[in-house]
Amino acid sequence: MATKSIPVVSLSQMAHGQEADMFLLMTAKEELTTRDGKPYFKIGFRDAAREVSFPIWGDSPWAEECRRQWTPGAHYKVRAVYRDTSYGPQLEIRKIRETVDADAADGFDSTAFLPQSRFNPQEMFAELLAIARGEITDAALCELVVSLLEGNRDALLLLPAATRNHHAFVGGYLEHVLSVTKTCVFLAAKYDDYYPDLQPRLNKSVLIAGAILHDIGKLREIQWQPGAAEYTAEGRLVGHILQGRDIVREAAAGRGLDPEVLLRLEHIIISHQRLPEWGSPKPPMTPEALLVHYADDIDAKYHMMFVALRDDANPGPMTSKKNQLYQQIYRGPLAP
Amino acid sequence: MATKSIPVVSLSQMAHGQEADMFLLMTAKEELTTRDGKPYFKIGFRDAAREVSFPIWGDSPWAEECRRQWTPGAHYKVRAVYRDTSYGPQLEIRKIRETVDADAADGFDSTAFLPQSRFNPQEMFAELLAIARGEITDAALCELVVSLLEGNRDALLLLPAATRNHHAFVGGYLEHVLSVTKTCVFLAAKYDDYYPDLQPRLNKSVLIAGAILHDIGKLREIQWQPGAAEYTAEGRLVGHILQGRDIVREAAAGRGLDPEVLLRLEHIIISHQRLPEWGSPKPPMTPEALLVHYADDIDAKYHMMFVALRDDANPGPMTSKKNQLYQQIYRGPLAP
Amino acid sequence: MATKSIPVVSLSQMAHGQEADMFLLMTAKEELTTRDGKPYFKIGFRDAAREVSFPIWGDSPWAEECRRQWTPGAHYKVRAVYRDTSYGPQLEIRKIRETVDADAADGFDSTAFLPQSRFNPQEMFAELLAIARGEITDAALCELVVSLLEGNRDALLLLPAATRNHHAFVGGYLEHVLSVTKTCVFLAAKYDDYYPDLQPRLNKSVLIAGAILHDIGKLREIQWQPGAAEYTAEGRLVGHILQGRDIVREAAAGRGLDPEVLLRLEHIIISHQRLPEWGSPKPPMTPEALLVHYADDIDAKYHMMFVALRDDANPGPMTSKKNQLYQQIYRGPLAP
Amino acid sequence: MATKSIPVVSLSQMAHGQEADMFLLMTAKEELTTRDGKPYFKIGFRDAAREVSFPIWGDSPWAEECRRQWTPGAHYKVRAVYRDTSYGPQLEIRKIRETVDADAADGFDSTAFLPQSRFNPQEMFAELLAIARGEITDAALCELVVSLLEGNRDALLLLPAATRNHHAFVGGYLEHVLSVTKTCVFLAAKYDDYYPDLQPRLNKSVLIAGAILHDIGKLREIQWQPGAAEYTAEGRLVGHILQGRDIVREAAAGRGLDPEVLLRLEHIIISHQRLPEWGSPKPPMTPEALLVHYADDIDAKYHMMFVALRDDANPGPMTSKKNQLYQQIYRGPLAP
Amino acid sequence: MATKSIPVVSLSQMAHGQEADMFLLMTAKEELTTRDGKPYFKIGFRDAAREVSFPIWGDSPWAEECRRQWTPGAHYKVRAVYRDTSYGPQLEIRKIRETVDADAADGFDSTAFLPQSRFNPQEMFAELLAIARGEITDAALCELVVSLLEGNRDALLLLPAATRNHHAFVGGYLEHVLSVTKTCVFLAAKYDDYYPDLQPRLNKSVLIAGAILHDIGKLREIQWQPGAAEYTAEGRLVGHILQGRDIVREAAAGRGLDPEVLLRLEHIIISHQRLPEWGSPKPPMTPEALLVHYADDIDAKYHMMFVALRDDANPGPMTSKKNQLYQQIYRGPLAP
Amino acid sequence: MATKSIPVVSLSQMAHGQEADMFLLMTAKEELTTRDGKPYFKIGFRDAAREVSFPIWGDSPWAEECRRQWTPGAHYKVRAVYRDTSYGPQLEIRKIRETVDADAADGFDSTAFLPQSRFNPQEMFAELLAIARGEITDAALCELVVSLLEGNRDALLLLPAATRNHHAFVGGYLEHVLSVTKTCVFLAAKYDDYYPDLQPRLNKSVLIAGAILHDIGKLREIQWQPGAAEYTAEGRLVGHILQGRDIVREAAAGRGLDPEVLLRLEHIIISHQRLPEWGSPKPPMTPEALLVHYADDIDAKYHMMFVALRDDANPGPMTSKKNQLYQQIYRGPLAP
Repeated sequence: MATKSIPVVSLSQMAHGQEADMFLLMTAKEELTTRDGKPYFKIGFRDAAREVSFPIWGDSPWAEECRRQWTPGAHYKVRAVYRDTSYGPQLEIRKIRETVDADAADGFDSTAFLPQSRFNPQEMFAELLAIARGEITDAALCELVVSLLEGNRDALLLLPAATRNHHAFVGGYLEHVLSVTKTCVFLAAKYDDYYPDLQPRLNKSVLIAGAILHDIGKLREIQWQPGAAEYTAEGRLVGHILQGRDIVREAAAGRGLDPEVLLRLEHIIISHQRLPEWGSPKPPMTPEALLVHYADDIDAKYHMMFVALRDDANPGPMTSKKNQLYQQIYRGPLAP
Repeated sequence: MATKSIPVVSLSQMAHGQEADMFLLMTAKEELTTRDGKPYFKIGFRDAAREVSFPIWGDSPWAEECRRQWTPGAHYKVRAVYRDTSYGPQLEIRKIRETVDADAADGFDSTAFLPQSRFNPQEMFAELLAIARGEITDAALCELVVSLLEGNRDALLLLPAATRNHHAFVGGYLEHVLSVTKTCVFLAAKYDDYYPDLQPRLNKSVLIAGAILHDIGKLREIQWQPGAAEYTAEGRLVGHILQGRDIVREAAAGRGLDPEVLLRLEHIIISHQRLPEWGSPKPPMTPEALLVHYADDIDAKYHMMFVALRDDANPGPMTSKKNQLYQQIYRGPLAP
Repeated sequence: MATKSIPVVSLSQMAHGQEADMFLLMTAKEELTTRDGKPYFKIGFRDAAREVSFPIWGDSPWAEECRRQWTPGAHYKVRAVYRDTSYGPQLEIRKIRETVDADAADGFDSTAFLPQSRFNPQEMFAELLAIARGEITDAALCELVVSLLEGNRDALLLLPAATRNHHAFVGGYLEHVLSVTKTCVFLAAKYDDYYPDLQPRLNKSVLIAGAILHDIGKLREIQWQPGAAEYTAEGRLVGHILQGRDIVREAAAGRGLDPEVLLRLEHIIISHQRLPEWGSPKPPMTPEALLVHYADDIDAKYHMMFVALRDDANPGPMTSKKNQLYQQIYRGPLAP
Repeated sequence: MATKSIPVVSLSQMAHGQEADMFLLMTAKEELTTRDGKPYFKIGFRDAAREVSFPIWGDSPWAEECRRQWTPGAHYKVRAVYRDTSYGPQLEIRKIRETVDADAADGFDSTAFLPQSRFNPQEMFAELLAIARGEITDAALCELVVSLLEGNRDALLLLPAATRNHHAFVGGYLEHVLSVTKTCVFLAAKYDDYYPDLQPRLNKSVLIAGAILHDIGKLREIQWQPGAAEYTAEGRLVGHILQGRDIVREAAAGRGLDPEVLLRLEHIIISHQRLPEWGSPKPPMTPEALLVHYADDIDAKYHMMFVALRDDANPGPMTSKKNQLYQQIYRGPLAP
Repeated sequence: MATKSIPVVSLSQMAHGQEADMFLLMTAKEELTTRDGKPYFKIGFRDAAREVSFPIWGDSPWAEECRRQWTPGAHYKVRAVYRDTSYGPQLEIRKIRETVDADAADGFDSTAFLPQSRFNPQEMFAELLAIARGEITDAALCELVVSLLEGNRDALLLLPAATRNHHAFVGGYLEHVLSVTKTCVFLAAKYDDYYPDLQPRLNKSVLIAGAILHDIGKLREIQWQPGAAEYTAEGRLVGHILQGRDIVREAAAGRGLDPEVLLRLEHIIISHQRLPEWGSPKPPMTPEALLVHYADDIDAKYHMMFVALRDDANPGPMTSKKNQLYQQIYRGPLAP
Repeated sequence: MATKSIPVVSLSQMAHGQEADMFLLMTAKEELTTRDGKPYFKIGFRDAAREVSFPIWGDSPWAEECRRQWTPGAHYKVRAVYRDTSYGPQLEIRKIRETVDADAADGFDSTAFLPQSRFNPQEMFAELLAIARGEITDAALCELVVSLLEGNRDALLLLPAATRNHHAFVGGYLEHVLSVTKTCVFLAAKYDDYYPDLQPRLNKSVLIAGAILHDIGKLREIQWQPGAAEYTAEGRLVGHILQGRDIVREAAAGRGLDPEVLLRLEHIIISHQRLPEWGSPKPPMTPEALLVHYADDIDAKYHMMFVALRDDANPGPMTSKKNQLYQQIYRGPLAP
């Protein structure tokens, strides 16, 4: 009864010293040791806008339950006191249990604990579909692409573009693919105009289909679940490049696709990372594959630069080299 | 009538100045230019034991027919005078036409124009099948391998291991695969003995199946025909490593194979060349894949060294670097 | 008098056996030796649409004059018999002299002997200027760019993008720079839209100025003259990347440009080839530099692929590897 | 007297809270500092089956003696209380002194503190000797190999294959060399059978001698003592590859060995790591050297994979990349 | 008044437990966290001969002032108790303020807090100037060099050769440049003697000028101030190699220097690090540039080896690999 | 008798059309084929100042004797007509026989057919010996070096530094080694002066001994004979670096050399090419080895640059890339 009287508040609204019930996504449970050998678990919780991270020491009353039951990626209803300490924001846990269906009545929504793409996934999906329908003039190919998009709608709306944390936002896959596709629409128009005598002529249908499907293998490579996107075993042993080609070949079976078109599409998928050491067994050997590779590469690198500029804590006009580009980025003179 | 009276002899038995009818495989038709600009075709013919190569000049009576009709890889009935000249052995062509079915009556056999493996393909095939049946104890996997071998029997008996000339011998594929497989049988026994506590234990069935099937994609990568093995377009754009995995996955459909077994088998195929720059999108990540890679690599390199020692014309104790290993090989002191 | 009666015709209109006067650009004079040691000069002439190449032997009546006076890159009035021989199209020279100003009266125009960009240089120049004026909102920077364009107008209208023959077409520089700039206009709009919170925000003025000026150093690196673009000594010892920065710094002196803007612009120029082994002492460290690099790289590689598909003589669905991308390109199945 | 009454027990049999005398090998004494600057020594002790590691703080009564006298690699008689703490198993030392000869009476045996090869060194040595005698048909060479083995018997029985801890097991050298030699016996038979026309024919005597002696330089490269195998200065400055060749040349002096045989044997030793960056000044340039290289490489890599699978603590189906192969290994699905 | 009675002593003369006033350079203020999450500042102070480093904890009375005001690179008058603790030498601060001009009266000298070159900067400067005047026989070039040296005298007397701490000694730039120049004087004499027929002959004036000016760009690349040499933004985005060429070109304007001489001098500067990945956009393409590169490279590497041998704490005859050469150095057998 | 009346003249003094007897070194006999298949031998002869090269066609009266008996590296007495033809200078052979001892009476001297070092070998040898005696203060080491020099005096006076033609000049080895040694004498003095506190102090004796002996292995690596320096089999399979160390170790046996000194000397030899891919199994790990490496590297590269500038036939201010540095060299503006 007593527990009823305590309101469920969001982590990001807690104040120092406040005790409340919260719905939280557990994001980390790492077994660590202090330098002088004392073991503890580093536990992380988050909601969409705030993260906390604190130790559960071996002699904590929660130590045993933590070790045996707590699972990163699961959601919990936690009653705790929130404190801003010199160790950063922390929770002093009073009660904890996994969420249950009935928690929905109290406002629990499992999709609300992760950062989101700044763009609406539904709208991005609709825009991608519209491009597919408008730009892919080869009817069988258009159908193939549309059916793959629609058949995987739910997963694609949520999928991140990669497993690393900074990409782990809902809709990341769509955001990236839509961006790559738009660049390809631009480049297709431009270069077809520049080189009308290219032999054979640039195949816009194949190009746009390739842009939309270049990363489709991530559906199989990544085992996605809130807070814990992980590579599948097949993802590690085979890889999204080959898996993406599988998805396309399986979907193409019996559709009467021109074999030449299918071959060029498969080639875009397997060559889109260009270098063998980046995972592509073949380099781009067609104009379509070349354009998809570049559109993909720009988008990834520009995002990395954005993240580096956003997240780097280095003082001064340069970031550190600790970012995904492994180099310093120039931020410019500091505001006075 | 008159042509009947001239006997059909084999190229390798012709003497200087002799005129005769021969059945020949055309191995080359190259359009070249002398250094001062005079164009000609360099034409090559061969039977199993001798090759000739000579120019058809632009003003030859055969020039027009040569340019328009002669095709490397086709067989011809040629009447010609054979001459040992200071330019090497040559033919002075009197008559030439493509072979026809009826030529079989005169002894024409289209498989008899290429160098052969020193081992009998039928026997190698039988030995490989026996190993599959004896060593692959996983019944579904054994069936898969046997059915792939038997279903492609005719092609496998003939297939070379690669398209370069020195490997273009009938049965080259079987010779290589059988050798790799035998090494794997040896290594499986030895290392399973050494590391009985490997976790999980070495899967001999998967290992032997992988050894037998590691190059199976060459069935699709190489368009094989006498005298002119060529890469298919799909072979160039996708590659035998991915194509081999396709063949296995297609054959495995509906056989009830353990998915874990299939995954490990696929992984052997795609990782068997180990490095991305050699075409493998993933490195060997299982003990089975590691052993197949090495057994394959030794066999290829040893063959290259054999060929280098056999074919190098460099005088002295070292070969030149112009061989497939791109290095000098030591031949030893010259016999006195 | 007699010479007046022979008409001046263009090389591309000559028929076998015809004798005529032609205005020609000498494109090659190479001192060679046949394999058995006989020396000769290989001479090339061209007009905008046809090339001829033939030997001048050591015992030719032209041998002495050829050796001492003929100069590749110079224009000649040549009276010759044109012949289609088995050695290709050739000229049998009767008279030859360098062109003189008076030849203009007979239709000689020194700019008409080289392949031209398919686009009109005047229009491309105007378009580039319009983009500079429309997109560079920083007034001082806009003025700098416009003044550099206008101040080098004549050279830029003619300059090729590089010295290799296949790029040696009039207007090649403008064609490439305009294409890069348009891609940057597109990418600037798109990514500024995607990342309005980039810190600091994408500087479109700097980006477009960088796109327009990234190769400006070629004005000093390449000594350009019809038929014989050559690197200057300074081009070899210092390079167009540093020279381009010099041009910009010299032009910027006294214009009151924001030093931060100038620094970012210089950085685009010196980093636009990204890797040190490609000539860039620094990698792109700003979002603007990153985008210019990619827009430049796509345009160069796409052009190389176009040229490879256009020029490759390899039969079959794949080109050879002898192109600027050092890889095979897929041409597709041959037309039936 | 009192000390007599406390039994000497092995570390691996101690229970929580028990006080006893133990014979222990000191395996580590590292001077460290906690993150906030407090200095301590991290001390390790082990017997064949258990290791303990704990700090001696700067204010410990043992601090001074620890700093000045304790030596990794030495054996100690230690009286201590054993405790399983949240910091792992620890010892609270009561008394400690280096072992003396008289301790043998109480069961002290200095060879019993390290992990052992799973195979009996005596038997491995005998088997290697038998192979040498059976397979090396060149009498002078056989004698050379046998004399080197027998002359270094004691050292070879103990030598590890390398200095890193995980290889620091008694008999590791013999285990590796025997495995390599057996693979070479197999490959020699197989490839001599495949290529009876190799010119010159495969020299099995040289091959087997090379397999047995390829790592013999480790006798000089590694200063081996229980718990602390270390590279000698000459090992660092010259390396086991050159030192191994020295050993063979010194032993060959005056034996009437065929110089050609000696040269091929030296070449196997110096080329067995194949690449210059792995320490081989020359690549394998003979068939014998090629086979020894591969047999050695397989054995090392397979062992690394075994160790990675055995020791990796990463949860899930893949190991981490923190192993000697610097890559993930697939462990397979977790048992239910 | 009371503070007057406490003497100002140097840090290096303090004894355990002594309290005194000191003038100190703050060398570090790093925000860190203990492994279990407790935040603190790691503060460093030094004078020319001793360094101390200790934590200011979050709950220290100095915490707030430390966070907000203390600045590495600034000088402070500090009253503190000095203690040799198990955490190393530490200060317990009683009073602290930035130094003021009036402190000079008490002996404060801001140049006295950093390690110094072992050679007198004034003398090195004079020696360099003398070499310039004696060896550069091209008058205009000699003037250019002398004017650049004299015009930057004050900065050059202090400048370190690089920003990393171990090079951060007063006069480091001069020490390095003088050494490089002397080697070039030697090599110039020797090789001009060896190859008097070099075409064109070695230009000693250019060579010596290049040696003296090769690193002159560091004047702009490094923002130098006591204890905190930092790269400028332009240093990061453009680099000292290009900046050095700028300095020379700006200084050369209007001096009537032979353009060929200036070009060769610029080339020395931009090529002196030889490889593009080390920052040189062009490799040395003249004999003068080749010699400056080597003289520079030897001097840098020899210094690194000296520092590695001086600073490495690894016991035994080899240093660790943690030095600027990333390799072990041989120290020799330990003294008995 | 008649032959007596024809004078023996040197090749370099022959005039067009002159017939005479000459003593000649045969430098080349290459079996070649014209592009259209006609076989011939390309024969080269030289004396110290002129070379000729011409074909012996298959139908020449000398063809048979040429094929079977003529040997590059042998000396011949040749009676021939000398002609300057459009194919270059040629000989029309009338008589030819190998030289015999009695030819000395007519002025034949077998050492007079090759280019010579510009310095006198005897004087260089004396200078090297003097340096050894003056700079190597370690008596045992000095004796070792002197005895190796004196014991190989005759070979060292003649040995080239490498086998490629441009280095094949008499005394090349001495010229290179003396130059390296002098640089080391300079660097030793300078750096010992700079770093008197190097620990351990720079060992000048070892350094100079290493400079003198760093290439001593070439005595065994190269089979030297006039006009045909060739690598020995051991040179190919083992290499001069290891062979040089052998020579030193063999010579050191029994001399009572300090083992530490010998080890440092061996290390200089095996590390002097620094990188494993250049043949050094270990990088320089001592100050002495570092200095010898650099002194050697400068000398080799400077020589290559000299040769490139001397021999390159490319017109214009840059050489081609076809030289041993694989890069363009700047020659400067052409003389007017």
